[in-house]
Amino acid sequence: MDCIMKKIVIGLPKGSLQETTLQLMRKAGFMISVGSRSYLPTVDDPLLEARLIRAQEISRYVEHGLLDAGITGYDWIKENDSDVEEIADLVYAKQGMAPVRWVLAVPCDSPISRVADLQGKRIATEAVGLTRRFLEKHGVQAQIEFSWGATEMKAPDLVDAIVELTETGSSLRAHSLRILETIIESTTRLIANKAAWQDPGKRAKIEQVAVLLQGALAAETQVLLKMNATQERVATITDILPALHSPTINQLNEQGWVAIESVVAKQVVREIIPRLKAAGAEGIIEIPLNKVIT
Amino acid sequence: MDCIMKKIVIGLPKGSLQETTLQLMRKAGFMISVGSRSYLPTVDDPLLEARLIRAQEISRYVEHGLLDAGITGYDWIKENDSDVEEIADLVYAKQGMAPVRWVLAVPCDSPISRVADLQGKRIATEAVGLTRRFLEKHGVQAQIEFSWGATEMKAPDLVDAIVELTETGSSLRAHSLRILETIIESTTRLIANKAAWQDPGKRAKIEQVAVLLQGALAAETQVLLKMNATQERVATITDILPALHSPTINQLNEQGWVAIESVVAKQVVREIIPRLKAAGAEGIIEIPLNKVIT
Amino acid sequence: MDCIMKKIVIGLPKGSLQETTLQLMRKAGFMISVGSRSYLPTVDDPLLEARLIRAQEISRYVEHGLLDAGITGYDWIKENDSDVEEIADLVYAKQGMAPVRWVLAVPCDSPISRVADLQGKRIATEAVGLTRRFLEKHGVQAQIEFSWGATEMKAPDLVDAIVELTETGSSLRAHSLRILETIIESTTRLIANKAAWQDPGKRAKIEQVAVLLQGALAAETQVLLKMNATQERVATITDILPALHSPTINQLNEQGWVAIESVVAKQVVREIIPRLKAAGAEGIIEIPLNKVIT
Amino acid sequence: MDCIMKKIVIGLPKGSLQETTLQLMRKAGFMISVGSRSYLPTVDDPLLEARLIRAQEISRYVEHGLLDAGITGYDWIKENDSDVEEIADLVYAKQGMAPVRWVLAVPCDSPISRVADLQGKRIATEAVGLTRRFLEKHGVQAQIEFSWGATEMKAPDLVDAIVELTETGSSLRAHSLRILETIIESTTRLIANKAAWQDPGKRAKIEQVAVLLQGALAAETQVLLKMNATQERVATITDILPALHSPTINQLNEQGWVAIESVVAKQVVREIIPRLKAAGAEGIIEIPLNKVIT
Amino acid sequence: MDCIMKKIVIGLPKGSLQETTLQLMRKAGFMISVGSRSYLPTVDDPLLEARLIRAQEISRYVEHGLLDAGITGYDWIKENDSDVEEIADLVYAKQGMAPVRWVLAVPCDSPISRVADLQGKRIATEAVGLTRRFLEKHGVQAQIEFSWGATEMKAPDLVDAIVELTETGSSLRAHSLRILETIIESTTRLIANKAAWQDPGKRAKIEQVAVLLQGALAAETQVLLKMNATQERVATITDILPALHSPTINQLNEQGWVAIESVVAKQVVREIIPRLKAAGAEGIIEIPLNKVIT
Amino acid sequence: MDCIMKKIVIGLPKGSLQETTLQLMRKAGFMISVGSRSYLPTVDDPLLEARLIRAQEISRYVEHGLLDAGITGYDWIKENDSDVEEIADLVYAKQGMAPVRWVLAVPCDSPISRVADLQGKRIATEAVGLTRRFLEKHGVQAQIEFSWGATEMKAPDLVDAIVELTETGSSLRAHSLRILETIIESTTRLIANKAAWQDPGKRAKIEQVAVLLQGALAAETQVLLKMNATQERVATITDILPALHSPTINQLNEQGWVAIESVVAKQVVREIIPRLKAAGAEGIIEIPLNKVIT
Repeated sequence: MDCIMKKIVIGLPKGSLQETTLQLMRKAGFMISVGSRSYLPTVDDPLLEARLIRAQEISRYVEHGLLDAGITGYDWIKENDSDVEEIADLVYAKQGMAPVRWVLAVPCDSPISRVADLQGKRIATEAVGLTRRFLEKHGVQAQIEFSWGATEMKAPDLVDAIVELTETGSSLRAHSLRILETIIESTTRLIANKAAWQDPGKRAKIEQVAVLLQGALAAETQVLLKMNATQERVATITDILPALHSPTINQLNEQGWVAIESVVAKQVVREIIPRLKAAGAEGIIEIPLNKVIT
Repeated sequence: MDCIMKKIVIGLPKGSLQETTLQLMRKAGFMISVGSRSYLPTVDDPLLEARLIRAQEISRYVEHGLLDAGITGYDWIKENDSDVEEIADLVYAKQGMAPVRWVLAVPCDSPISRVADLQGKRIATEAVGLTRRFLEKHGVQAQIEFSWGATEMKAPDLVDAIVELTETGSSLRAHSLRILETIIESTTRLIANKAAWQDPGKRAKIEQVAVLLQGALAAETQVLLKMNATQERVATITDILPALHSPTINQLNEQGWVAIESVVAKQVVREIIPRLKAAGAEGIIEIPLNKVIT
Repeated sequence: MDCIMKKIVIGLPKGSLQETTLQLMRKAGFMISVGSRSYLPTVDDPLLEARLIRAQEISRYVEHGLLDAGITGYDWIKENDSDVEEIADLVYAKQGMAPVRWVLAVPCDSPISRVADLQGKRIATEAVGLTRRFLEKHGVQAQIEFSWGATEMKAPDLVDAIVELTETGSSLRAHSLRILETIIESTTRLIANKAAWQDPGKRAKIEQVAVLLQGALAAETQVLLKMNATQERVATITDILPALHSPTINQLNEQGWVAIESVVAKQVVREIIPRLKAAGAEGIIEIPLNKVIT
Repeated sequence: MDCIMKKIVIGLPKGSLQETTLQLMRKAGFMISVGSRSYLPTVDDPLLEARLIRAQEISRYVEHGLLDAGITGYDWIKENDSDVEEIADLVYAKQGMAPVRWVLAVPCDSPISRVADLQGKRIATEAVGLTRRFLEKHGVQAQIEFSWGATEMKAPDLVDAIVELTETGSSLRAHSLRILETIIESTTRLIANKAAWQDPGKRAKIEQVAVLLQGALAAETQVLLKMNATQERVATITDILPALHSPTINQLNEQGWVAIESVVAKQVVREIIPRLKAAGAEGIIEIPLNKVIT
Repeated sequence: MDCIMKKIVIGLPKGSLQETTLQLMRKAGFMISVGSRSYLPTVDDPLLEARLIRAQEISRYVEHGLLDAGITGYDWIKENDSDVEEIADLVYAKQGMAPVRWVLAVPCDSPISRVADLQGKRIATEAVGLTRRFLEKHGVQAQIEFSWGATEMKAPDLVDAIVELTETGSSLRAHSLRILETIIESTTRLIANKAAWQDPGKRAKIEQVAVLLQGALAAETQVLLKMNATQERVATITDILPALHSPTINQLNEQGWVAIESVVAKQVVREIIPRLKAAGAEGIIEIPLNKVIT
Repeated sequence: MDCIMKKIVIGLPKGSLQETTLQLMRKAGFMISVGSRSYLPTVDDPLLEARLIRAQEISRYVEHGLLDAGITGYDWIKENDSDVEEIADLVYAKQGMAPVRWVLAVPCDSPISRVADLQGKRIATEAVGLTRRFLEKHGVQAQIEFSWGATEMKAPDLVDAIVELTETGSSLRAHSLRILETIIESTTRLIANKAAWQDPGKRAKIEQVAVLLQGALAAETQVLLKMNATQERVATITDILPALHSPTINQLNEQGWVAIESVVAKQVVREIIPRLKAAGAEGIIEIPLNKVIT
C-alpha cells in the first residue's frame, strides 16, 4: 500500500489551534518539529511536507491547489466558501473536545431581540463572509465591519451587534453580551484539494493521515482495562463491560482462571470498576493508549 | 451499585496541596477543571460537586455538614478538633509521599532542651490548637502566638520557640533551628461527615471515590512487568518476582514458551531485571499504570 | 547478583546535557533529585552516589579515580585524552538522538580552503587539546586560543578560524561560517575508571546501570503493538511485522482467533498500521514503553 | 543632631506591601537588600536594623518592644488593638495611593440589608478582632469564623457574610458580593513603641526616618516646574501656580527676564501648562523629584 | 481657559503600540489604568474618556464620530482612507523613535525587479487598501490577498510578493526577502474628528492633550545641562550650546561667577561635554526631564 | 575638539557584566542596541564600534590591537597578564558598586590553615594564571586544575582548595567554605591598547568615553539638593553641606532670600536633611542626576 503513496503538502493551523494540532500529529506518528523558520516545520516522513498557516487561510490555499490537504476549522472553510473535499471530522477545539460556535450577540440590555431587528445596524466581526451570507438568508441589510480583534468590547459603544466565536459563552457573559442566534457550529476538519483526492497516490497518503489522526484522537478518550477472574465469573464480568469492543479472554495457568482485557471509554471506567470488583474481578489494571485503530 | 449512589459535595485543598490533589483526582477518573471562579471547579460527574477550600478549614466545614466529604491533612483535622469520619489514608504530601510532621523547634543555641523548659516562654505557630493541647498534656504554660507565616524566621528574635510543619527538616536547619519534639505526624486523609456516612447513597459514592483514589495512588509506585520464558524457567523466574501479586502466565504458540506478566513495585524493578535476565527471561517490558485496584 | 554489587560514584553532566541525562536515569529506574546543593543529587539507591559535574571535566575525574563511572561526551574524553574504560554508547545528545560534531570552520568568504592554509593563523576554540592534536597530525602550526564562549562570533573579526561544536550546522550558517573539516564525531558515553572496572563488585553495579540505561534508551524509539486476528490471517500479519522481535501469539477463547503482540520501532508504526488493517488485524493498540530489555 | 541618635529596630511588612515599602525606604535613602535570609534584610545604616514581618503581626511586636518602630496598616493596628505611638500617615497602599477599606459584604441577592440582619448568622473574615468589635458596637451576635484566605468565595455557600479588604471593589463585584457597610478605612502608618518614643536618642532616629519617608512619598506626586518670563508677566504667572509652595523667582542676565520655579502636584500640571503658556511663560520644563521636604 | 474645555473620547491603540502609548499618556500627566475590562481604561480626568481599540480601526471610528480623537499610525489612516483632522505628529513607533515603512518585497531570487513585473501576480498583505491604491497608481493589475499574519513566510511558496511593515528590515532579510519599493512611511499621529475640531470646547481639550503629549515626547530626547563658569567664559560656552533653546544665565553670589543652564538634545551631550569642560565650564550636571514645552 | 577624534573599536563584556555595562554606556550617551547578531551591537556614534566579548578575553584582544579599548575586570587583565593602558577605574560590579575579590578558600573543617599548607594539594579555579603566580610568590607547588564552573562544589570532594570570585562571601558560606586569603581585589576598568593611546585622534575619542562613563557613574551615587534660606542662614547651611562640591548660591527676587544648591552623595542625604531643616533651610528638594562631570 505504501509503495503507491505519493508525497503531499499539508497545511497546519498556526496560532491558537497549533499546539493541540501538533501534539495530535505527533501522537499519530508524525514527528514534527517547528524551528526558527516556523512556516516550514520539519516532518520525519519523506512523503509529507507541512506548512504552518493561519487557520483562516488554509481552505483558500487547499482550494487553489497550493496545498494538497489541510487541518482547519469548518467555520473558516465556510467563511471562505471554499470548494474542498472534507475527509474527516476531528472533534477537538482550542479548549477541550466540544464544537465551537459563531454566534450573533448583542448587549444584554439591547432592544434587539431577533435577526430582523438588525436592519440598518452596525455589526463587527472577524467573519465578514459568514455574517453577510447569514443576513442575506434572513433578508436583512446591515453594515458589517471587519474587526481586527477584541470584538466583544465593541458593543454597544462602537457597534450594535457582533458575530463572534465562543466555546463556553463565558467571555460573552463577561462582556455583558446576550446570544441572539448561532450562525454556525464548527469542529476541526481534515480537508483535501479535489484534484489531489482524485489522484490515487495522494489519496492513499491522505487516507493514511486520516486513519492515524482518528486513531490518535480516539485514544484520548479510551483506555485498556485488564483483569483476572475465575471462569464462572466471566459472564457476569463481560456483561458489565461496554458492548463496543468485545473483551479479550484467555486461559491462565491457574486452573479455572482467565485473563480479561478490554478497551473502554475513559468516562465509564470509574463507574464500572467498583462493579467489576463486586463481580469478582481481581488485579484490575488500566493502561494508557496512544492509538486505538477501529 | 451506581443507581443507589447519591450526590456528594467534596472539599479539595486550595494552595500547596492543590495541584497534587487535582492530579490524583484526575488519575482516579474525575475530570476536574478549575476556571476563573476557582472556588467552584467543574467536575464531569453529576454525582460529585467540588469546592476548593484552604486545607486548614476543610474539616470544620465537613464536621458542620456544609461538605459531605473532604481531602485534607490529619494535622488540620486535629488542629480544628473536628468530629469527622476518617475514610482513607492517602499517603502523599506536598513533596513526595512521606508523612509531614509538626515539630516543636528552638534555635540551635537555645538553652531550652525539653518541653518543660518552655514554661513562661513565647511560641509562634500557625497551629495554635495543636500546640495548646500538646502543652496542656505536658503541664506547661506558655504564651502561644498565632503566626501569619514565615514562622521559622521569628526565633530567636521575636519568640523562644516555634511549632512548624516540616517534611525533610531542611528549612529548619537552614534557619538554625533544632527540633525538640514531634507534636504530630500527618498524612492526607479522605474524611466524611458523620451523617453523610450513615446515608447509604452518600456512603456508596464516598466509597467509590475512596476506591478510585487509592487505586490511582497505588499505581504511582507500581508498574507492569511482562516477559517471555521457556516452561522450565518459570519456577526460577516466579521465585524472583515479589510475592505480593502472583504473576499471570499463559501458553504461547511457540512450543514450550510462556508469557509471564506481573505488577511489581517500581522500586524493585531495577533490582530484579538483571536477575530475571540471568534466569532466562527474554523480551522484558515495563508498562506504566494509571490505576491498580487491589 | 545484587549481593555482590558494590557502591559506585558516578559523574553526571551538569549543564546542557543535564536534563536529558537525569530523565534517562529516572526512566532507567534511578530516582534522582537535585536539591539546593546541586553538586550532590540524592539517589534512592544505597549503592549509587551521583555527582553533577561539567561534562568537560568528568573523564578527568574518572581517570583519576575520584569517580568510578561517568556519563559524558566522547569529545571531552578525547579533549582530555583520558585513559578510561568505555562501557556503553548512549546515542543521544542535547537536541535529538544524532551525534554531534566538532568542526573546523572559517568565514564563508575566507581564502582558507584546506587545513594546510591554517599555517600561522589564529584559531579560537573551547577544545584546545583536540585542536592541537588535529593540527599536529596535519603538520600545521597555528596559534590556538582558548575561547570562553560565543566562539562563532569571533571569526573573521578576531580570529581566522574556529573549532566548534555543531549538531545541525544551523548556528554556523547563521554566522556565515563554512565547515572545512570534521575533527571528531561524538556521542554520549558511559565510562568507567579502569581499576573500578576490574573490581567484580563495582563492575556488576556498573553493568547494571549500563543495562538499565540502554533499556530505557531503546524504549524511546519503540512501542508495543497488540492486535487480534483469525488464525488464517496470522502468517500474513506476522510477515508485515518487522523481523527484529518475533511477535507473541496466543489463543483466544473465541474459536479461531489469536492475540498478537510485538515490539516495533516507532518509526515504522505509521507505515504498517494501514497494512495490518488491510491484512485483517482488528482492535490494534499501541502501548508506550518505559524499558525494552533485549 | 546625628550624634544623639540611637540605633532602632524597625519592622517592615513582608508580603503584598513589601515591594512598595522597600522602594519607598530606598527612595528615602536607606539602601535595603533582601537576601536569602529574608527575615533579616541588610541596611546600609549602622543605626537602623530591619525585620521583614507580616503586616498583620508588626503592631504586636512594636507594642511588646521587640521592635522599636514599624510600618504597617492602620487596619492591623486596630485588629490587634495595639497600644503604640502613631508617628506618620504614609498614604500609600498596594495599588496606588488610595486608602483601603475593610467592608462587610453579602451576596448580591442576600435578604440581609443592614447590620442588624446578621443576628445569628455566620461570617468569615481574616480580621476577627475588627469584626467582633464592630458587631458588639451594633449589639449584634453572630458566629465569626477565621478565614485562611479566598474569603470572597465563601459566601453564600459556606457563610452568610464576609468582612474583607477592598481597594477598588472590583474583586467583590466579580464574586457577586454587595457592600453593606465600611468597617474601617486604612492607610499605611509609621508606628513606634511607646517607651522607644520617650527615649530621646531613639526618638531622634525615628523622626529622621519619618521626615525622609514623608519627603520621598511627597515626591511621588510632585514635580518641579521651571520656566522663564519677562518681569511684567511674573504676577500673572504666579497667580496660576498653586499657592502651596511659594515659587522661587530670580533675575536672569538677560535684561528684564526672570526664571520662575515651583514645586507643583503632578495632577495639576496638565491643567496649568496651557494657562502658563497663555500667560507668557517660555521654555517650560518639568523635572522629576526624589524628595520634597516641607 | 479650562472652564471652556469639553469632555472628549479618545481612542488609544491596543496591541503592539499600547504600552508605549500608555506610558506617554502617563508622562503627559494622564493617569490611565487598564483593568480587566481592558477596552475601557480609567483616566483620572473627568474631561477625558479613553477606549483601547486596535490601531487598524481607530481612524474609522474617529471619522464616523464614535471617537472625538485618537492616536494611531499614519499608515492605518491611509489604509482606511479616513477623512480626519491630523493634529500632531508623535514621532515614535514600536521600537525606538524612527518611522516605520510599508514595503513591497519579493524573494531575493525572484525575477521580479520593478513594480510593473507584478502584473497578474499574487500579493499577500494586511494592508489591502494601501496596496490596491499603490498598484492602481502604477497601472498594475494583480491579485491582492488579505493576510491574517506571518506574511513574510508566504513568499515565494504561496504568493509572489508581499506588502509588509518593517522597522529595521531585519525580519525581511531573515526571510530572504528583498525590498522593491517603499509604499508609505508612517509615524504615530494624534487625529481628531472634523466636527469635534470645529467645536471650541472639544478643540481646547484636544489641544491640551496635544501640547502635553508633545512636551512629554520632547523630554524623551532632551535633558537639562547645568554648569557654573566665570563671567568671561560665558560667550565661549554659550557658543558651544546648541542654538535651539537659548541658555538661561544668572549671577551667583560668588563674585564673577554665573550659573548657565540649557535644555539640549541627549544625542549632542556626549559631543559637547568635552568641549564645555575645555571652555572652562565647571560642575557640569545633567538632569532628566519629564516635559519640555516649547 | 571633535574634529580630531578618530574612530575606535571597543570591547564590552558579554555575560554577567553585560546589562550593567550597556546601561552605563547608554547613560553616558551612547545608544547601544543588541540585536540577534549579539557580537556586533549597533551604536549611534559613527566614531564608535562595539564588540560584545567575554570579559575573560577582552584584555587579550586589546593587547593584540584587535580592539582599541575595552571594559573588563582588573582580575582578567591580571589573569591574562595583558600589557595594556589603564584609563579609568569604573567602580561597579555585578551586584552593587563594591569591588569583587578572588579568594583562596578551603572547606570549613579542612586542616589547611595557611598558604604553605597547600604544598602538593589539588586546587580548582577558573583563574589558573592568577593562582599560579600567587602560589609561585609564596613558594608553594600545587596541582592547579582549570574549572569549567560550579567551582565551590568541588571542595572537598574533588579538590583540596579553590580560588574563586566572591562579592559578599555568601555563596562560599553556603558551601561551607572558609576564606584563607584574598588573591586579588578587582573593579571594572576602561583599558586601551598602548599604540591606540599614543594616537592623538584615538586618544581623544577614548578620553571622551572615559569622561562620560565617569560622569554617568558618579551620578548613580549623587543627587542635587536645592533649598531656599534667608541670607543670615547661608553660612550655617553651607557648613553642613559636604565640602566636595562647593554649593551654588544665588539671590532670589524676594528680599533677603537666596537659593542654595549642591551636588551631594546619596548616602549623606539622609543624615544632613534633618540638620539642614534645623538650620533653617526651607523647601528642600532632591533631584536625580544623569551625569556629574567633575
